[in-house]
Amino acid sequence: MAKDKKLVEAITSMDVDFAQWYTDVVIKAELIDYSSVKGCMVIKPAGYAIWENIQKELDARFKATGVENVYMPMFIPESLLQKEKDHVEGFAPEVAWVTHGGLEPLQERMCVRPTSETLFCDFYAKEIESHRDLPKLYNQWCSVVRWEKTTRPFLRSREFLWQEGHTAHATAEEAEERTEQMLNLYADFCENVLAMPVVRGRKTDKEKFAGAEATYTIEALMHDGKALQSGTSHNFGDGFAKAFGIQYSDKNNKLQYVHQTSWGMTTRLIGAIIMVHGDDSGLVLPPRVAPTQVMIIPIQQKKEGVLETAENLRQAMAEAGIRVKVDATDKSPGWKFNEQEMRGIPIRVEVGPKDIANGQAVLVRRDTREKIVVALADIAAEAAKLLDTIQVEMLERARAHRDEHTYTAHTYEEFKELADTKPGFIKMMWCGDEACEIKVKEDTTCTSRCMPFAQEEIGEVCPVCGKPAKAMVYWGKAY
Amino acid sequence: MAKDKKLVEAITSMDVDFAQWYTDVVIKAELIDYSSVKGCMVIKPAGYAIWENIQKELDARFKATGVENVYMPMFIPESLLQKEKDHVEGFAPEVAWVTHGGLEPLQERMCVRPTSETLFCDFYAKEIESHRDLPKLYNQWCSVVRWEKTTRPFLRSREFLWQEGHTAHATAEEAEERTEQMLNLYADFCENVLAMPVVRGRKTDKEKFAGAEATYTIEALMHDGKALQSGTSHNFGDGFAKAFGIQYSDKNNKLQYVHQTSWGMTTRLIGAIIMVHGDDSGLVLPPRVAPTQVMIIPIQQKKEGVLETAENLRQAMAEAGIRVKVDATDKSPGWKFNEQEMRGIPIRVEVGPKDIANGQAVLVRRDTREKIVVALADIAAEAAKLLDTIQVEMLERARAHRDEHTYTAHTYEEFKELADTKPGFIKMMWCGDEACEIKVKEDTTCTSRCMPFAQEEIGEVCPVCGKPAKAMVYWGKAY
Repeated sequence: MAKDKKLVEAITSMDVDFAQWYTDVVIKAELIDYSSVKGCMVIKPAGYAIWENIQKELDARFKATGVENVYMPMFIPESLLQKEKDHVEGFAPEVAWVTHGGLEPLQERMCVRPTSETLFCDFYAKEIESHRDLPKLYNQWCSVVRWEKTTRPFLRSREFLWQEGHTAHATAEEAEERTEQMLNLYADFCENVLAMPVVRGRKTDKEKFAGAEATYTIEALMHDGKALQSGTSHNFGDGFAKAFGIQYSDKNNKLQYVHQTSWGMTTRLIGAIIMVHGDDSGLVLPPRVAPTQVMIIPIQQKKEGVLETAENLRQAMAEAGIRVKVDATDKSPGWKFNEQEMRGIPIRVEVGPKDIANGQAVLVRRDTREKIVVALADIAAEAAKLLDTIQVEMLERARAHRDEHTYTAHTYEEFKELADTKPGFIKMMWCGDEACEIKVKEDTTCTSRCMPFAQEEIGEVCPVCGKPAKAMVYWGKAY
Repeated sequence: MAKDKKLVEAITSMDVDFAQWYTDVVIKAELIDYSSVKGCMVIKPAGYAIWENIQKELDARFKATGVENVYMPMFIPESLLQKEKDHVEGFAPEVAWVTHGGLEPLQERMCVRPTSETLFCDFYAKEIESHRDLPKLYNQWCSVVRWEKTTRPFLRSREFLWQEGHTAHATAEEAEERTEQMLNLYADFCENVLAMPVVRGRKTDKEKFAGAEATYTIEALMHDGKALQSGTSHNFGDGFAKAFGIQYSDKNNKLQYVHQTSWGMTTRLIGAIIMVHGDDSGLVLPPRVAPTQVMIIPIQQKKEGVLETAENLRQAMAEAGIRVKVDATDKSPGWKFNEQEMRGIPIRVEVGPKDIANGQAVLVRRDTREKIVVALADIAAEAAKLLDTIQVEMLERARAHRDEHTYTAHTYEEFKELADTKPGFIKMMWCGDEACEIKVKEDTTCTSRCMPFAQEEIGEVCPVCGKPAKAMVYWGKAY
């Protein structure tokens, strides 16, 4: 019992110190460990298994839209990185440089990819000749490196895992359509798989990707009221195509530049899952992304028939397609409960001699802690139904929390007051001028998260400068 | 027709120039393209899809033995690489060095991982405390970098994709068991999925992995009679554990060093598939690893009912779990045949108005070119059966080729004669002395491939030096 308490006490309460709570959960749920490589993390089995589920879900959705996977080199020669002016300015300050291969200095230094636009462009310039070669819908799963000064597990680390899609199209319209299609795919994925509601919108020019014409984003609200950019989709127009000379001959045999997009999601999503759903007992995983969905914990497991019943229940659920395990280790049930809760496993099944005598078991929801007694024979059907219910209700709760923490400011005074006292999104009109974004950031540390696709008319002027408003913007303090 | 010929003529015949044939196939089957990053390749969709199938098959087999996936940083600080003496000597000359992060020089340079023993050891030293923490059965899928001077697509490139398993065990026996288990898993995978027979054996000390106590290997024979090391499994004993201080307290509370293994397979396997099964028309893929198993090519596709029938056949086969496509582009059937053959798709279905009138279609095997007329209603069952047959017969043919090209030398003169005139494996006894290996290599360019587990008594002395023989060795010229 002392031991049980120790595990729980080791987590800081999220109300006391949210940042420390986050770090505690990441470590105690065994998602990552720190490594000897400064700013880089080791993703442990429990963390990597979540990433594998994210990959499986996203990859299937990509392929259903015609996307194919490829693999580009991890190095970018400096001259290639420099071909697109805005892009190099955005990334050069934060890349890792390789200067020696084996015992010899390189003739030209290369960076480890921070993102692969330049490599895809270089490839497309050789690969694309005719309109018959279009569209190209390529994606790759890989790791990238950005030499961040301050790092946090999953949220900001020097190396992280991601996917990056890079497409080339014959027309501007097709590129725009693909940019929006992928953003919507991301949003649907976040809502349906991660149970995480997102705001879809467009980044201001100040916040857009280096080299992009337009950046679309999905923004999620964490439990502490901070925003997290959870996925982006960029329309490059023909800017990269001109810098790299990517042309195709159209049906009239005339040379045209292609129009390109890119879009990415990263292991940062695991940080989002933690901060949207977690609680003071640890992780709470949405069933669809949980590596283990049900943990069966036998009570008085040395009594006759208990482990056998647990194993029968496991088999019944496994056959129904549920990811289920039995914890038959020699730890105490209380310790096992704490571990299952810490790891965010959506359902715990408790089954002991008394339950068996009554022909029943107890399902315990991780998200609400509700206990449900079910007949042993119904376990697979009941657990499957409950997993669906949990998935739906986790999204509803997260949406309610997000909506409760979304405020509207009609004046700049009101905005500053909200920014100071109410963690969350703040909706405010904006004139379109970068100067006002800078002022807001200086005054409040809030940044423009996005101009949501779903615009609302909440005023006619920009409260910061008084000039006519161009768009409603979601503002927030961000990770 | 001129165009059809052009595609085929573009491949050098394998009998004329095997190396050029290989390069032609790799490019014409659109598996890779060269990149602007010297020595690195772009893996294109057709190549990456093969790798995805390899990953899926291997990953499931690993997990069935209790292995869990993790992700380690891609960088290794120089001091970490240097901890195990043999290991650093083996790898330091061929790593890429990162010296700058962003605009600043690093305090300590780091290499891009050539392999991750040092990172796993560093991690295990922190992670493992008690016998309860053992075994650790971790694997990662990633890319690694080795600064090779001469490169060839898939076979030897500066960056390649692989998996690396790293395990830690309480006893030497368990480590040895795991080393052999993984080698056998690799061998079964090669034979059952890639239809590629392999010789299982142990590397000589000269050829073993830097830092290993023993390296086991599977060696395959390519069509040109050269050997390809296709997977390795290493037993490290407690050498790394001592260098990195990886200790656990046993049941008597006594500190013990762990015993470790590592094992890996790489994108090199794609090169092996090409060189074992390919022919002068291009790639020949074993059905189990083929991204597309059946290509339906409609004949006179503008005629009424042809495309509809093709689509019905596709649906019937897809429902039976076959990976099937219809090529309904406006290319000529002949051109489509050539493409399907070049890409190594195991079965082509030809269906035109005459076939439809007769209620039939023609299945054409890629491997033997045999044509089989089947009733439209039986297509799914017949295609599934034929895929199984092809899989089995490809392995049998490859095994027959390997056996026909495996020779026995009783004298060193005989060995030199065989090495000079008969491409293939040569079996010869060996005294265990590295000097004889060096002499064989100098005289013939043959290296010791392995001491096979299945030893044969083909003599009592080492024909090179005349001393008593310790083992029979497979020798060969290798990629």
